Amino acid sequence: MGHEASGIIHKAGPAVSNLKPGDRVAIEPGFSCKSCTYCKSGRYNLCQKMKFAADPPSTHGTLSRYFKIPEDFAYRIPDSISLEEAVLVEPLSVAVHGVRLADVRPGHRVIVQGAGAVGYLTAATAWAYGAKQVVITDINANKLEFAEKGLNCQTFKPQSSSTPEQEAARLKQETGLVDGADVVLECTGVESSAQLGIYTLRRGGVFVQIGLGKAMQTLPLHAMCEREMVLKTSFRYGPGDFEIALGLLESGKVSVSSLISSVTPFNQAPKAWKKTMNGEGIKNLIEGVKD
Amino acid sequence: MGHEASGIIHKAGPAVSNLKPGDRVAIEPGFSCKSCTYCKSGRYNLCQKMKFAADPPSTHGTLSRYFKIPEDFAYRIPDSISLEEAVLVEPLSVAVHGVRLADVRPGHRVIVQGAGAVGYLTAATAWAYGAKQVVITDINANKLEFAEKGLNCQTFKPQSSSTPEQEAARLKQETGLVDGADVVLECTGVESSAQLGIYTLRRGGVFVQIGLGKAMQTLPLHAMCEREMVLKTSFRYGPGDFEIALGLLESGKVSVSSLISSVTPFNQAPKAWKKTMNGEGIKNLIEGVKD
Amino acid sequence: MGHEASGIIHKAGPAVSNLKPGDRVAIEPGFSCKSCTYCKSGRYNLCQKMKFAADPPSTHGTLSRYFKIPEDFAYRIPDSISLEEAVLVEPLSVAVHGVRLADVRPGHRVIVQGAGAVGYLTAATAWAYGAKQVVITDINANKLEFAEKGLNCQTFKPQSSSTPEQEAARLKQETGLVDGADVVLECTGVESSAQLGIYTLRRGGVFVQIGLGKAMQTLPLHAMCEREMVLKTSFRYGPGDFEIALGLLESGKVSVSSLISSVTPFNQAPKAWKKTMNGEGIKNLIEGVKD
Amino acid sequence: MGHEASGIIHKAGPAVSNLKPGDRVAIEPGFSCKSCTYCKSGRYNLCQKMKFAADPPSTHGTLSRYFKIPEDFAYRIPDSISLEEAVLVEPLSVAVHGVRLADVRPGHRVIVQGAGAVGYLTAATAWAYGAKQVVITDINANKLEFAEKGLNCQTFKPQSSSTPEQEAARLKQETGLVDGADVVLECTGVESSAQLGIYTLRRGGVFVQIGLGKAMQTLPLHAMCEREMVLKTSFRYGPGDFEIALGLLESGKVSVSSLISSVTPFNQAPKAWKKTMNGEGIKNLIEGVKD
Repeated sequence: MGHEASGIIHKAGPAVSNLKPGDRVAIEPGFSCKSCTYCKSGRYNLCQKMKFAADPPSTHGTLSRYFKIPEDFAYRIPDSISLEEAVLVEPLSVAVHGVRLADVRPGHRVIVQGAGAVGYLTAATAWAYGAKQVVITDINANKLEFAEKGLNCQTFKPQSSSTPEQEAARLKQETGLVDGADVVLECTGVESSAQLGIYTLRRGGVFVQIGLGKAMQTLPLHAMCEREMVLKTSFRYGPGDFEIALGLLESGKVSVSSLISSVTPFNQAPKAWKKTMNGEGIKNLIEGVKD
Repeated sequence: MGHEASGIIHKAGPAVSNLKPGDRVAIEPGFSCKSCTYCKSGRYNLCQKMKFAADPPSTHGTLSRYFKIPEDFAYRIPDSISLEEAVLVEPLSVAVHGVRLADVRPGHRVIVQGAGAVGYLTAATAWAYGAKQVVITDINANKLEFAEKGLNCQTFKPQSSSTPEQEAARLKQETGLVDGADVVLECTGVESSAQLGIYTLRRGGVFVQIGLGKAMQTLPLHAMCEREMVLKTSFRYGPGDFEIALGLLESGKVSVSSLISSVTPFNQAPKAWKKTMNGEGIKNLIEGVKD
Repeated sequence: MGHEASGIIHKAGPAVSNLKPGDRVAIEPGFSCKSCTYCKSGRYNLCQKMKFAADPPSTHGTLSRYFKIPEDFAYRIPDSISLEEAVLVEPLSVAVHGVRLADVRPGHRVIVQGAGAVGYLTAATAWAYGAKQVVITDINANKLEFAEKGLNCQTFKPQSSSTPEQEAARLKQETGLVDGADVVLECTGVESSAQLGIYTLRRGGVFVQIGLGKAMQTLPLHAMCEREMVLKTSFRYGPGDFEIALGLLESGKVSVSSLISSVTPFNQAPKAWKKTMNGEGIKNLIEGVKD
Repeated sequence: MGHEASGIIHKAGPAVSNLKPGDRVAIEPGFSCKSCTYCKSGRYNLCQKMKFAADPPSTHGTLSRYFKIPEDFAYRIPDSISLEEAVLVEPLSVAVHGVRLADVRPGHRVIVQGAGAVGYLTAATAWAYGAKQVVITDINANKLEFAEKGLNCQTFKPQSSSTPEQEAARLKQETGLVDGADVVLECTGVESSAQLGIYTLRRGGVFVQIGLGKAMQTLPLHAMCEREMVLKTSFRYGPGDFEIALGLLESGKVSVSSLISSVTPFNQAPKAWKKTMNGEGIKNLIEGVKD
């Protein structure tokens, strides 16, 4: 549908002061109402009137020649960032939002569950926020290897033959996380993964659910209560996330280029969809027609 | 076992500077190690070496003629508070701890689930923290009536014939909570109650699990994620909770006297246990022998 | 100029959904741009494009027959609040903003400096936020008496013949603030008052400057550093402050009626200004012409 | 006096469980009472009964053959850290404490005032916490050059011929800090430096006073109020600071070796003091006698 996009400013309205035609921008695809309690109190991602660029028929995605956006949801990118990389600012902002909710800092030991695009970027962001240790988990060995090489983090492959509690004990032992993790960032949405994550936390630890999974999930609530754990949920991105994501890219602290698997011309767009459906590559981009 | 207790100082060790024989004190029954990471960072309730006065055989409760405690876990009570009321400072501190975690403030609309002793005190504490609206829920109509009269809060009796989601909608309609609650304080530990509570929250709302229930509980995680809700768990009490609880009692903002159902002499202690087992009264106290 | 005002909706634009002609409203007189970093991150009071209704010639005040405002800066008031009282929601919001920055809570011992309208409302708000003790200071004995009667707080009249440090010691002794205040809310803007306030704080205490005074002020920075104190400054009001202020009024936790000294018809407006210039009364209101 | 020290465990008391003779440790030189309100609430650096190893005659420093410390104030160091480097964990912890109070994060633009040992380590720590930009200021060109080379940060040399306000404008222009700094960390204690720092902050910015200067200092309070700035003060170090500092060293994110100018044998200790008095080198260490 196209909620991950970048572009070039074609025309600027009379009230626009910070952008001009020709500017290259990353696009934040959800436009909030700016007047409700959530918008005014710094939590616009919770706005109930949000127009998100992937909710047809009311709001179509960015897969069009021209796309109209409010000035403050288009972020000019520096020369050092390509339009292709700028597409990835959207999932990187998802990662930034989750890591900020978790309040990752130097000294923290962090587990990221899921080594797909969001998990990969979340682990990269946890490093950028100063984490002391980052362990990434996935049931796919290839993804783990990709993350290990790209991010220099430890990896763990859960076995479905054991219980989440047993696998948590194994994870802690194998990765040296004796006292448990300070933060777990769950990017899969899978119930057993959430359980495993919670069991790896230290007392008072913070679990952030970033991935969306099934409606009802069973969690070890008693164990959480005895250790006063916190479960936060992370929804898209809010104030500052896109700016921070762009800053991480510009400084080189996070790199997204290895996630871009292919770039397909607009007139062959279905090919890109097919690749993604077939599980080929990570991010298959569609390139628009330039003026 | 006696983890809720008050007493009179019989003898003070040579290093004690703030208490002297004859002082009446409320007793915080868990003694932390004071040297671990949790103790030093202001979260001593998570101390792994905690000696809690109700963990026999290592730590017996306060049901004894003399009970030895570190000076800083005994809180001198003012003349206006009776020794009987001081016993209730312990469950009141549980309430204070949960309300502080929830960060209840003026303007907040709060739901407290469970109208037993802890639920009752939690609702009273929510008022004291400035809540704009307090709704208390229970399946026991008598307890609801008791809370309504004693606390001037709204009440709601969930029906087991409907789903938690349906009951949440009914609660919101009947209590005028159109936009949902800012905070839910769950004091029952019952799974369906937790579900109901989460469904009543507004976007970005905070749910605090105070009651301990069964090990695994199924929660509407997807709905929580879409609304970026937070689930915190509350374990006993920590820094400042006893002082605040005493202050609430002293100022009259919270009253505990109506919860004291009976006072039994020490030599007839089994009678008090029997009453509690039979569901008679709320708090059945046992009175020690004075010197 | 009229930045404290209430009114009746005369006409609603086509996009207005929550207000209709005839609605009585309190007016938040600063309209932010809604698109800058500050507006989007929940700090719209810092918006650099703020249009404040008392900055002529660009923005005139509310002293006019009709005044145009964005819907979300007009707050419908309940029947129990008069239009006269609604005028005072503006200074009450200043108080709420300061008290929220200070994070006043049950257990806190609070000093409010200055017993004028803002100081009075700040002390009232500190009580509403659960403060355990509120001491108000002023050099005017009449104002202190007014506050003592209206707010049931302790009072202190600083002597200019002693140093701020000496007066702080006397204040602590006379009010029983042995360990110092948790929070000081400075509403005068006077340098010696700020110094006195800082000297009364406990270690780690928080000082909030609400009153605006002279450009450069000399503060006991060394004493602050040794005790790790925090100095915050409070500017007008932001997200939620008007709603909370209205809630405090509606619940009766704060009353503003005693501050309304006179109501003058619009065609005699200069009389109200004269009273205020002569120091007569506290708040001298001007009543508009009804349709 | 020796409040910056490391050592080797000579003997461990019977209750010690985490350390054994031969262990190399960094020493936190202030021992708190562990029982007061501050100690229990996670702010032990504010403990009024603190025994600091540089307060003769009550508490002598570490300049002795054997020095007795509580187990939890001695931090075992990994093999990769030398005993000389471990001495610098103390000033690095001062930096960590200040940076944590300032809550430096990715995206933040930071100014550090003072390029001495603490300023240098504060700037290094700001980088480690993810700062986007770090500018260091000093009136000593050599120190600035040292910091520029060692830390890859921008530098600024204030001119005493201009006002702090003018110099702040020049700093912002020359370093590209158009919108002002998010955080200023003041490590000099000099009044004009504090003024300069405050003038460089953006609206809502945070100023942290780390350096101790003269008792009374004149600050631009009106400008702070109009921009709702926050001034925090930082006192030594508290929970977690030593662990984080050690982690930064171990990971290589912060290096202290360039600050160690000389190592003098214990029997020639006065030589080290002389060097420091003459302004030779940065940190002149004294080496104890090994068993």
